Amino acid sequence: MEKKEMLYEGKAKKVFATDDPALCVVSYKDDATAFNGEKKGTIVGKGVVNNRMSNFMFKLLEKNGVPTDYVEELNDRDTVLKKVQIVPLEVIVRNKAAGSFSKRFGVPEGTAFKCPTLEYCLKDDALGDPMINDSQIIAIGAATKEELDTIAKYTMKINEVMVAFFKECKVDLIDFKIEFGRLPDGTIILADEISPDTCRFWDVDTQEKLDKDRFRRDMGGVEEAYAEMMKRIGLGE
Amino acid sequence: MEKKEMLYEGKAKKVFATDDPALCVVSYKDDATAFNGEKKGTIVGKGVVNNRMSNFMFKLLEKNGVPTDYVEELNDRDTVLKKVQIVPLEVIVRNKAAGSFSKRFGVPEGTAFKCPTLEYCLKDDALGDPMINDSQIIAIGAATKEELDTIAKYTMKINEVMVAFFKECKVDLIDFKIEFGRLPDGTIILADEISPDTCRFWDVDTQEKLDKDRFRRDMGGVEEAYAEMMKRIGLGE
Ligand SMILES: Nc1ncnc2c1ncn2[C@@H]1O[C@H](COP(=O)(O)OP(=O)(O)OP(=O)(O)O)[C@@H](O)[C@H]1O
Ligand SMILES: Nc1ncnc2c1ncn2[C@@H]1O[C@H](COP(=O)(O)OP(=O)(O)OP(=O)(O)O)[C@@H](O)[C@H]1O
Ligand SMILES: [Mg+2]
Ligand SMILES: [Mg+2]
Repeated sequence: MEKKEMLYEGKAKKVFATDDPALCVVSYKDDATAFNGEKKGTIVGKGVVNNRMSNFMFKLLEKNGVPTDYVEELNDRDTVLKKVQIVPLEVIVRNKAAGSFSKRFGVPEGTAFKCPTLEYCLKDDALGDPMINDSQIIAIGAATKEELDTIAKYTMKINEVMVAFFKECKVDLIDFKIEFGRLPDGTIILADEISPDTCRFWDVDTQEKLDKDRFRRDMGGVEEAYAEMMKRIGLGE
Repeated sequence: MEKKEMLYEGKAKKVFATDDPALCVVSYKDDATAFNGEKKGTIVGKGVVNNRMSNFMFKLLEKNGVPTDYVEELNDRDTVLKKVQIVPLEVIVRNKAAGSFSKRFGVPEGTAFKCPTLEYCLKDDALGDPMINDSQIIAIGAATKEELDTIAKYTMKINEVMVAFFKECKVDLIDFKIEFGRLPDGTIILADEISPDTCRFWDVDTQEKLDKDRFRRDMGGVEEAYAEMMKRIGLGE
């Protein structure tokens, strides 16, 4: 499987065409951004961590009945994926309050919820990725009712699998963001990535942050946190 | 029924105690505010319009199976209500895009939706009344799942009744905001007001605005628009 022309360069990944129009290759960069691209930097080795962790998680989720875009890891940074049309939604699950939720609703970080929350943001950088609800998504045509039902069902399953998996690694899964895509026949599958860029991971005992918040908040120890997460899930040196 | 001590002074209404602890008297003012209180002014006669129109609408909704806090109109500005604990949510229904929806999602004003949208904002001036979804409402305990189901059911019924009623008055109901309250036994009923302060009304032929947007946007003809709406619903001179 060879990389052909670049289709898209995002903030964290490049997407390349392949000989097979149904497949693409994603290539993970070390570039880090935060606050809708306002803050920029580099996290050395992040591309490797995110590529390998994401593939590991997608394989775990496939085993648990969630269809994903994962096809084959080519090397430390490059992976073959089923090419999808991305549903223009960031799908966010929260088990404890943190980040924008805490700010928006005045709830202290770390407050546990009885039930996880599920929220959607419209993927639109110019609008600042605004929060959007089911009826609004349907009204503007970003997804159909049936697609949202499928997305919600898979998402709650993904949370269940991930919470249990990370607990074994002595990590609290505070929240995460995922994306879904449409195959040419309309089937909804999990796409994009699952990594310390897109999850909040807190050490179960010390509540130490092991994710991109260390970069967002200038806490230092960013590379160390990403490396620690690799160790915790059994992929580290 | 006599007004006793004032319990609360809001931006548009005062609420008074009565001899009966289950009842209160609401008194409508001519004060107008917009943009979370940043803009202030007076709309002469607004208190009378809003009191009379709101009572008229609440009676119409009662007839259509929606329980409300309405008890008795005392005079042009004062009405006896069942005292409730307000559910801290602004419940918003939209039939066409306008206002904050248009801004938030980049959808031109007047764009029609196939299905109405239902959105909630957390009533919290300090937080700027942020939009909030069902799972978030339940997580922070602002309302229960059962209460939200009841609120959504009544709200869609209210929209149905109001769209049909205003169409007869040659008025397009673009969107509206309502509030619900809890009786001492926990029963959910419609509360607060339904008026040109809380609805967007557009003339069905000219699409002329007949509501508080004339004040928000300094369009002039504010009092005339409120008076026109009274005529349209059969309460004007
Ligand atoms: N299987 C896939 N097929 C096609 N596109 C994909 C697939 N998986 C992820 N993508 C998209 O590829 C891009 C990955 O790049 P990156 O994560 O760097 O984007 P980004 O800067 O976050 O921008 P965006 O706002 O578009 O997500 C994203 O637009 C993502 O939605
Ligand atoms: N039946 C009722 N029983 C008790 N309170 C009520 C009832 N109906 C409405 N209210 C409340 O009375 C107040 C009415 O005042 P007004 O509409 O002027 O408030 P406001 O300035 O909009 O402030 P708020 O942010 O509290 O709504 C509101 O807080 C409203 O929720
Ligand atoms: Mg991305
Ligand atoms: Mg009010």
